[in-house]
Amino acid sequence: MELRDKRIAILAPVAWRTPPRAYGAWETVASNVTEGLIARGFRNVTLFATKDSVTQARLVSFVERGYEEDKTQIPPVSTCLHISKALGMADEFDLIHSHFDYLPLTYARFIRTPMLTTIHGFSEPDILRIYREHKDTYYVSISDSDRDPELPYVATVYNGINLSNLTFREKAGDKLVFLGRIHPDKGTHLAIEVAKKSGRPLILAGIIQDRDYFERQVQPHVDGSSVQYIGAVGPVERNALFAQACATLHLNTIPERFGLVMAESMAAGVPVIAMDLGSCREVIADRQTGYLVSNVDEAVEAVRNIDRIDRTKCRRRVEENFTIDRMAERYEEVYAEIFRREAARGE
Amino acid sequence: MELRDKRIAILAPVAWRTPPRAYGAWETVASNVTEGLIARGFRNVTLFATKDSVTQARLVSFVERGYEEDKTQIPPVSTCLHISKALGMADEFDLIHSHFDYLPLTYARFIRTPMLTTIHGFSEPDILRIYREHKDTYYVSISDSDRDPELPYVATVYNGINLSNLTFREKAGDKLVFLGRIHPDKGTHLAIEVAKKSGRPLILAGIIQDRDYFERQVQPHVDGSSVQYIGAVGPVERNALFAQACATLHLNTIPERFGLVMAESMAAGVPVIAMDLGSCREVIADRQTGYLVSNVDEAVEAVRNIDRIDRTKCRRRVEENFTIDRMAERYEEVYAEIFRREAARGE
Repeated sequence: MELRDKRIAILAPVAWRTPPRAYGAWETVASNVTEGLIARGFRNVTLFATKDSVTQARLVSFVERGYEEDKTQIPPVSTCLHISKALGMADEFDLIHSHFDYLPLTYARFIRTPMLTTIHGFSEPDILRIYREHKDTYYVSISDSDRDPELPYVATVYNGINLSNLTFREKAGDKLVFLGRIHPDKGTHLAIEVAKKSGRPLILAGIIQDRDYFERQVQPHVDGSSVQYIGAVGPVERNALFAQACATLHLNTIPERFGLVMAESMAAGVPVIAMDLGSCREVIADRQTGYLVSNVDEAVEAVRNIDRIDRTKCRRRVEENFTIDRMAERYEEVYAEIFRREAARGE
Repeated sequence: MELRDKRIAILAPVAWRTPPRAYGAWETVASNVTEGLIARGFRNVTLFATKDSVTQARLVSFVERGYEEDKTQIPPVSTCLHISKALGMADEFDLIHSHFDYLPLTYARFIRTPMLTTIHGFSEPDILRIYREHKDTYYVSISDSDRDPELPYVATVYNGINLSNLTFREKAGDKLVFLGRIHPDKGTHLAIEVAKKSGRPLILAGIIQDRDYFERQVQPHVDGSSVQYIGAVGPVERNALFAQACATLHLNTIPERFGLVMAESMAAGVPVIAMDLGSCREVIADRQTGYLVSNVDEAVEAVRNIDRIDRTKCRRRVEENFTIDRMAERYEEVYAEIFRREAARGE
């Protein structure tokens, strides 16, 4: 059977619709993988997701709406019903590709179909107990840095983004931008410090995930001119935001797992100044599409030298590495490898 | 094969050790069922519980300690590993008897061994989505009143208690007692009101589950004489408490599912004045072992008439209906019925 005729099940989470209306990173990737496979000519793709999901694939749903969008639902009731009923259909598929964290693995011993899990990050060290228990399944990491040394991985597959709402602009704006959750992990306070020391205006965009942090370390600096906070932004506003930017500040304080916003920024031609933690050095090319820094002073220096970055290289880096089609192509290779191993195992 | 040679797996929760050191109602019942079956002569009982559990049965553990006693554990990691690995051994058993709420049911479609679930209560209406999805498994209710009309039940099996620390005392004390979680559901405030109107001293015992409620509606009345609060009590203190009691006030404001404390009270010879909600009318015999009431005034009237209750009848009601052996005997009947149905299904 040809690879693209294989029956592929994509298991999305059910916290949000797939793709999500706004926030929902795992659902976004599950959607991009599904649609990317279809676009590459896969003929037998089934998406397991909430009933209000939107896809070109066959949609199978056991949960009406995302539990984050319907507070009458008890999350483990919805998640475990969704996983249980989806995996109850395992025999109808050649491969189950899960984007749903660790819980589906606890059902893996009961099915015969091979299961591939894209590990979107280890939210807590304790969840490794489950990953390490299921080494006989297949794992993909989303960056080389976000790997547990004890786990066997088939490959790293970088996330792919939709370029349609990211206009490349050769001409730099004069502002610095920060895009992401307002949370200490994302270093919003460091972005403010860099902007002040650089004498450049800063625009902050993103949901407030840590209200206390926002009120203490962010809001006091927001004056509407040197530091502006514009709330969460959708694709259109994000595009407009990048149009004003000379650089994106991504001064994360913990290792980044992948960092979609870095790819989005480069797609718009905006170089990224990123803390050298986790995946940042895989997503940006140091001194080519931005700067890797270790502290605020280095970031200020990077802002000073931002014009040395060729913005067309930023766009090209995304086109070559971080598009939906590139991601789907990589998954196609991973699937082929899994089927090779399964065939060898069966011999 | 003889019934008592059947290979029975008891699936306990892993929030606490089985039996729990203090709080942990489901683990208590799982332990009582396990030990009760062994005492009745079952020769092949396996208890799935935390590694530090104590049992006469064979103990199989995948979780070191209860996640409530070890905060490094993520509860769903421990629970789903425990369930997954226990049910992964399903083929080694003739029956799986689960005391672990709704989650194990989401694995039931993957195993061939019949599964019986004792439904210890519906914590939220939404969990019915899972129970109603798995009507092809077997259910037991813990009282006739705590039933969902859409579910098929094999039987009601009342909880059984350990009588060894409950001394029967023919002579009544002069105090009223309240034993249970300090929570509006348990009507602690109503017990105080009844005690004041009756002119009888009241002793309150139990964990404070709702701190705000305690501070507003309980603590202001605690004066150390007319109303005393003695905190949570173990078996020995509980026995001493009943020795001082003329009646136990159980003025729950929501339907009771079973109500272990009513059985414990009667075992010590102490009649129970209970709100006529849920299982109370099944546990106490109205006007024989206590009084069912609808409001505070009726409860005050019941206190006035408490001497009319024959305390030996209280003890006898427990001995006949709510002992561990009586519970194990009832489960033995349920197991036999399940094996009959399974045999008929296989024909």
